[in-house]
Order: sequence, then C-alpha cells, then structure tokens
Amino acid sequence: MASLDYIRLDHGSGGKLSYRLIKDLFLPHFANEPLKKLDDSAVLSLSHKKVAFTTDSYVVDPLFFPGGDIGKLAVCGTVNDIAMSGAVPVYISAGFIIEEGFPIYELERIIISMEKSAAEAVVDIVTGDTKVVPKGKADKLFINTAGIGIILDNVDISSANAQIGDTVILSGYIGDHGIAVMSKREGLSYKTEIVSDVAPLHAIIEGLMQSGIEIHSLRDPTRGGLASSLNEIAAKSNVGIMIEEEKIPVRKEVTSVCDLLGFDPLYVANEGKFIAVLPACHAPEALEIIKTHEYGKNAEIIGEVTEEHKKKVILNTEIGGKRIIDMLTGEQLPRIC
Amino acid sequence: MASLDYIRLDHGSGGKLSYRLIKDLFLPHFANEPLKKLDDSAVLSLSHKKVAFTTDSYVVDPLFFPGGDIGKLAVCGTVNDIAMSGAVPVYISAGFIIEEGFPIYELERIIISMEKSAAEAVVDIVTGDTKVVPKGKADKLFINTAGIGIILDNVDISSANAQIGDTVILSGYIGDHGIAVMSKREGLSYKTEIVSDVAPLHAIIEGLMQSGIEIHSLRDPTRGGLASSLNEIAAKSNVGIMIEEEKIPVRKEVTSVCDLLGFDPLYVANEGKFIAVLPACHAPEALEIIKTHEYGKNAEIIGEVTEEHKKKVILNTEIGGKRIIDMLTGEQLPRIC
Repeated sequence: MASLDYIRLDHGSGGKLSYRLIKDLFLPHFANEPLKKLDDSAVLSLSHKKVAFTTDSYVVDPLFFPGGDIGKLAVCGTVNDIAMSGAVPVYISAGFIIEEGFPIYELERIIISMEKSAAEAVVDIVTGDTKVVPKGKADKLFINTAGIGIILDNVDISSANAQIGDTVILSGYIGDHGIAVMSKREGLSYKTEIVSDVAPLHAIIEGLMQSGIEIHSLRDPTRGGLASSLNEIAAKSNVGIMIEEEKIPVRKEVTSVCDLLGFDPLYVANEGKFIAVLPACHAPEALEIIKTHEYGKNAEIIGEVTEEHKKKVILNTEIGGKRIIDMLTGEQLPRIC
Repeated sequence: MASLDYIRLDHGSGGKLSYRLIKDLFLPHFANEPLKKLDDSAVLSLSHKKVAFTTDSYVVDPLFFPGGDIGKLAVCGTVNDIAMSGAVPVYISAGFIIEEGFPIYELERIIISMEKSAAEAVVDIVTGDTKVVPKGKADKLFINTAGIGIILDNVDISSANAQIGDTVILSGYIGDHGIAVMSKREGLSYKTEIVSDVAPLHAIIEGLMQSGIEIHSLRDPTRGGLASSLNEIAAKSNVGIMIEEEKIPVRKEVTSVCDLLGFDPLYVANEGKFIAVLPACHAPEALEIIKTHEYGKNAEIIGEVTEEHKKKVILNTEIGGKRIIDMLTGEQLPRIC
C-alpha cells in the first residue's frame, strides 16, 4: 500500500478496498492465528473460565504526543483496566473510526505503535473493525479497544474491597499524561518537555499477585485523576481515605504548569499509574516489589484507609491542614484519552 | 436526570457528571451484577474455555431509521458476528463516543433500544465507556460493541471450511437494511416503507446447532452485501460458488429502488440475514429449521459450492446467462452501519 495514500470512504465499505487495508496494513502488524482467519469473530482458547472483560474508546487530541500516541494509549489503557481486576490480559480487539482523508502513513505509525505495545503487554490483537466516515464527521481517528484477561483462582480485587486500616500505595508521579497531551495540543513549550507516562502495568500487578500479597483494591487513576479514583474506592468500600500531600509524587515541571494554568495535579489524568489498597502488614513488601519495576520505581505509600470520614478522601496538606478532596467536578482537560 | 438536558463535555470527564450519567442512565437499563460493580473490568464466569470474541463500531447515519436505530444495530451486529462462529453470545461491552450537545432523551431512547435487543438476544451488557468530544468533532453518536460467546465442543465453523458439493442457504430477503437507512437519510419516500431487517440471529443458529446438523460456514452479509460475503467464503475455502438469481429473495420495493438509483441488491447491506454453507444431505432439514424462526421464514437454498471457478462466485441469471459476481468495489452506500 503506497504510504502517500489517504483513507477513502471505500476503505470502510466491506468490499475490495476494506479487504486490502486489512491484508496490507493490519495483518502484517497484528499477526496471530485467530486474526488471520478473518472470520466474523476470533475463536480463542482460555486457560481459565473466570475472566475480566473491559472496553474503552480513545479520542485523544492530538493523536501523537510526547511519550506516546493514540495507539499506545488504546492498548495500554485496556491492558491496565484488565490488570486492575487482578487479571492477566490475553486478548484485545481494536475498532477504528477513521475520518475520510486521514493519511495512511499516520495510520501505519499508529498501528506499529499498537503492535509494539501489544508485544510489551504480551497480548494479541485478535479481532477488529474499520469504519470510515466522511470528512468533517469525526476528528481524524478514534480507536476503541476491548480486552479479555484471565483471572487466577482466589483473586478477588474490587474498588469495593478496601478495608479499614489498609495502606494506600501510589505507583509513581501523577499528572504527566494529562499535562503532556494538553501542552502538545495547546502548543505550549517548557524548558523540560513533559512526557506522558502511558505504559502497560500488567507486569507489576502480576509480580504482586505471584508474591502472594493480598490486594483489596486496584485502580488506575486515568480521567478524573488520583482524586476521583480514591473517591470511587472510598464510596464503594464505604470507608474513609486519608492521604499525605508530601508523599504524593508530582514532578516539579508538572506542578509549575498546573500552578500557571490553574489545574490541580490530583485531578489530572495518568495512563501508567495505579493505586493499590492492601493490608498494612503487606505494604512494605508490596512497595519493594513495585519499585523493582521500571514503571513503579517512584512508588510511595501515600496514605491509609480510615473508619472516620466514610466515603470521603482527606488530604493532610504539607502545611499541616486538612482538606476534603472531592471527585472531579466539571472538565478541566477534555480529550486527554 | 432531566430529559431535556444535553450532553456536556463534563459527562466524559471521569468525574461527578460522568458518574451521574452512568448511575442515572446506563445502570437502570443495563442492570446486571458485573456492571453494577463499576470496576475497571467486568469479572465474568464462562461455562466453556473456548470462546468467540468480536468487535464492531457503528457510525450509521441517521441514528434512527425504519425498523431500528444505532443501539439495536450495535447489539444485534455483535450478537450476529458471534453467532456466525457457531457460538452462543453471552456478554457485550458498549463504548459510546458522543458529540457535545447531543440530547439526553435521544441517548436514552438508544439505551432503551439496546436494553431490549440485549434481552431478546439473552446477553448482558457488562462493561462500558463514555467519551464526549467537542461539538463538530464527531457526528452525534458512535457506538462500539465487543462481545464474547461460548463455543460448544466439536464446533468448527469458518469461512474457510466450505466443501465442494455443499449447499448454500440464505435466510431471507436481501437489501432491506441498506435501502431503509439510505432512504431515510436522503429523505426518499415510497408507497411502501422499506424497513431494516436488523435482528439477532443467535436463536436460529442455536436451533441448527442443537439439531446436530453439520455446518461448515456461516456469514452475515452486512457491509458489502451478499456478493462480498460469498466471495470471502469462496476465496478462503478455495472453492467456487454458484448461485441462482431466481432463488435469491429480494423484495419488489427494494428491487424498484435499486433499479431507480443504480444499486445492485447483491451488494446492499443486511443486518438480520445469514448465509449457511453445509453438506447437501443436511440442507432440506436445515432449511426447515431456519424457516420455523421468525427471522428465517423466507429462507431459500440459493446455490452450491463447486470445484469449478475456484475463488469465484458465479450467478446463473434468470434469463439463462452466467455472470461473475465480484466483491464490492467502491462504496455505494456509506454509513449504513
């Protein structure tokens, strides 16, 4: 396929050009036996009958940003949602909605990025779909991924399982993704480039599971940021969560941009971070395991689950005050994923 | 939630308004235990370890058309793709990409339609996602569904499995869906309204499987129509397919519109039809079973699989000629699904 071509309506027709797009562009990069059959569904074998199933659509603008692109985001986002159920991600689907006139070389870059992320996350992209809409009816490209993961025996992880006395661990710096995407979109530049943290977290979670550490809740603080995810855990588990401001890792550059533009890093999206809630006695060992991984090396214990302040998140500020941290209201940074 | 409201960017923020949209609109209609937990993934139990997994995005314009809407289409389309692997559909995901300003009462109509279709198809919508893009960045609403079905033992159905001597059955009238959507979009009106055939086909397929009839290939001729689906089977199975024009059910009204506008019903999309390829000795019994179902009552044996004309589809015309029927080239009817 000539790389100077552009996507035409025919590419979504279900006819010859659709077939060529699949054969020439998708199949070489997403090579695996179930996909190659190009049947209406992929036929798959699972090693366990208990599975995690999730979906997300990606509408990020711009499509390419420091540290990643919509393809990497689409694979990692779904891999991470599966991992947050304590499951091992195995299969991914990919649905593309493409605006007529989109350059095929950009689509190929994105597909190659998905291929790489899938390889890193050890998942196969086994089924897919391509739709093309006329120029002006979508903004360049949207991707939906759904994913299946297998859940090992005796795993029961949920936002509703946090227990009073549990420790809250955060796997690293917050706010990098949201600020990286927003800065690229708005054409802002800083001395130090802020790079998205988008990354697959399955390996860290598998490491924790294999160690036998009991985990109650896992959550990746994407849209809505750390504050919204902690609020969900507090509300669903009917507990309070107390966190220490000084323990929350935020890069200096992210703090500066947030100060300048009036954002709060607690509400800015992350795409390669997670919160783990687990028994205090396991916390030191869990932290050690998380820190051995590249994507967890800046992890910190940031707080604890309390009986007081049920369904609320309380921040102990660096200057010694207390502040209730609510869920995000309004939308400060649209289209960051 | 007031039904006069409109979707705002905040509805996709991952914060408070997102949460309210899910609690007030999605949960009441898609009520099931895995979804209610609102975790990053739905945790599911499967009765078998061999599964079918599929995805499709829906960008149909207009969203509402005679016989259905984008919601019904999104559920039935994925249910049917699963059924075409000889699998029993069980779980569906739903990803919504909504344009800012979309009326919530229309979204609710669509959600209710999905609820009804899911009930008819006996599937649960267990996980989902909502993204909102600024006005002008998408055309009203796009929906992605992915689905999981369980595959019973000893089932091996694929477009690559057609055998020489097999019979080809078509489950009813072709072209209804494409012409219904196009007519609504273009504001055409006829004496008799043409209604989309969108419907779930799982029950007919389950009926065939339970009867013990051997089935080699199943395919639902959606985009690209009957001609493209038959070509895919011929190419992948390395066989010829010979069909009889006089046996192919086409409504008079659809033929008239196609004649008028220069379309060929063989290439027009269907959303409630399937092609079954199976041993000739089983064909009469299979046809009888299909005809007992509402969505299969107009089924016909339309042709056979031949050794000659490998990878080609040959039409024996009503006037006694032969014509090679190729895959769809170009795009005659965009955005019909």
